[in-house]
Amino acid sequence: MRIAVDAMGGDHAPAEVVKGAVQVAGEHGVEIILIGKEAVLEKEMEKCGVSGLPLSIVNASDVIQDGESPTAALQAKPDASIPVAIRMVKEGKADAVVSMGSTGAVLVSAMEILGKLEGVRRPSAGGFICKFAPNTMVFDLGPNADCKSRDLLNFAVIGSVVARKILHIDNPTVALLSNGAEEGKGNLLVKKSYPLLKQSGLNFIGNVEGKDIPFDRANVIVCDGFSGNILLKFCEGLGEVTGEWLRRKLEGRLPQEEMAAISEELFALTHAAEEGGPIFGLDGIVVIGHGRAMAPQVAKAIGMARMMVEADLVPEIKRELAKLKYED
Amino acid sequence: MRIAVDAMGGDHAPAEVVKGAVQVAGEHGVEIILIGKEAVLEKEMEKCGVSGLPLSIVNASDVIQDGESPTAALQAKPDASIPVAIRMVKEGKADAVVSMGSTGAVLVSAMEILGKLEGVRRPSAGGFICKFAPNTMVFDLGPNADCKSRDLLNFAVIGSVVARKILHIDNPTVALLSNGAEEGKGNLLVKKSYPLLKQSGLNFIGNVEGKDIPFDRANVIVCDGFSGNILLKFCEGLGEVTGEWLRRKLEGRLPQEEMAAISEELFALTHAAEEGGPIFGLDGIVVIGHGRAMAPQVAKAIGMARMMVEADLVPEIKRELAKLKYED
Repeated sequence: MRIAVDAMGGDHAPAEVVKGAVQVAGEHGVEIILIGKEAVLEKEMEKCGVSGLPLSIVNASDVIQDGESPTAALQAKPDASIPVAIRMVKEGKADAVVSMGSTGAVLVSAMEILGKLEGVRRPSAGGFICKFAPNTMVFDLGPNADCKSRDLLNFAVIGSVVARKILHIDNPTVALLSNGAEEGKGNLLVKKSYPLLKQSGLNFIGNVEGKDIPFDRANVIVCDGFSGNILLKFCEGLGEVTGEWLRRKLEGRLPQEEMAAISEELFALTHAAEEGGPIFGLDGIVVIGHGRAMAPQVAKAIGMARMMVEADLVPEIKRELAKLKYED
Repeated sequence: MRIAVDAMGGDHAPAEVVKGAVQVAGEHGVEIILIGKEAVLEKEMEKCGVSGLPLSIVNASDVIQDGESPTAALQAKPDASIPVAIRMVKEGKADAVVSMGSTGAVLVSAMEILGKLEGVRRPSAGGFICKFAPNTMVFDLGPNADCKSRDLLNFAVIGSVVARKILHIDNPTVALLSNGAEEGKGNLLVKKSYPLLKQSGLNFIGNVEGKDIPFDRANVIVCDGFSGNILLKFCEGLGEVTGEWLRRKLEGRLPQEEMAAISEELFALTHAAEEGGPIFGLDGIVVIGHGRAMAPQVAKAIGMARMMVEADLVPEIKRELAKLKYED
């Protein structure tokens, strides 16, 4: 399996990206293709000592910076690391692509180069909001700030495939995130989406509330990307203030290293997105890592891409989306 | 100061409502008028021993149940405790009303009986999402699931008055909740509201993200009621799972009573709405308590109504809303 890694994207690129790639190259049959400025990457690889590892470089002469307008940047820099990396997938030279670079640029390039699946208006991000609920994934977590009911139906279909193939849940339950559990509660989007999900043939169990998210009450929770994003980030913030509060409360009561272990575990439980997020609805596998990822997070993002390749997600999602009968 | 309390609303009415009222009657000059079935309330008062306390009863022959359609119920039961209690405020016989009953019925009755302030489409709920940030209130927390930009502007104006008069913050900062900090990030509603807030004359500091909420980064955070509600309830859920996880982690490491105190404090920090929520945008003071309130929470909801009366909030909110120049 070959994974193309944009080595120029992220706050700590290229050094930490190369280090992270070196950590996982060769494991589980993973071959890594680093995309970026050849001379720079060669030096980074030398530092790491990579001899014998299945690591290669494909040159990309340009880099898209974080502040740039994605569409303009792609036109001006067709040979930047992001589009070059994504083209590797399109051309069958890689099975998946991982980037810690500008989310907007990755999304726009991926839509243009790989294409979207039938009925998808814009790719979506899905994953855990908090790890307290290891069997609950939320779709969308960001890219689709404004949604139509058809988008939520797509998220439900995609989420069900992901829950089956990644979480290994046979008949995953699907719920709509709402401000009330009863049918009929919700904003206009939720009210319009409810009957669509009910008739979808998915294992739809109705609405869940914010309170239900950490309790594994549904395997797939669908919502617009604005809601998903504020929840994901609120979880991070609440995890951090809770950790600080706890340290003050327990100061002098526990050995330092135990306190540190508890803090670290709470951080990991409430920062699920640190490991990077897969993007769905594209005709190819794309994982966007966290901009501030260090080598261990880069390694995890590559690991996520590997899992998605192994699960062979795209053909299944394509099939399920194509089955939907929906009139706009 | 006279506070009308709907003694028939809530899961534990009338017993716990009467008990809670008895706890605060006479404190800070608060006189309580209990609204409900006279014979029933007299019995409850006898149990509590209320002689000498400033507590009286106004009879209401009917009760609106939780499942009923608010509009239909109000038409069928004009003498139910909720409308009777709200009419006390309208007629100047009470300074505020508190109900633990059906939120929908309270909102609909209050709109009809007290009326809405200029430019308000629907009353809003505002308050703390978590107590880790004691200087951050969020508006709206529920009633306005679908908002227009004008609504968000109203919330900002109302929130600024509340932060000044209740939190005693001189020039409160106001922010829009968004999925990105930069201007231009957000869903359509946020993007449309941004210039309105910028020109409002309020101390607008731009967008904040979900992560900022528990860190007191703005005194007033405005969002649609769907977002506010899912965040509020997610905070409760996350507080509960974190508390359970912590008990398992610390089992045997701390004396039981210390562990219990930590759990209790974490619960309180993450369950801000347990104390009841004030409703804004009405021509009168209305506090909706939690449906499952026991006597201590009822007492707190009454205390909140008292604070709002003392702050003389309504005339100031009325003045500030009337100043807004907004063309639909």
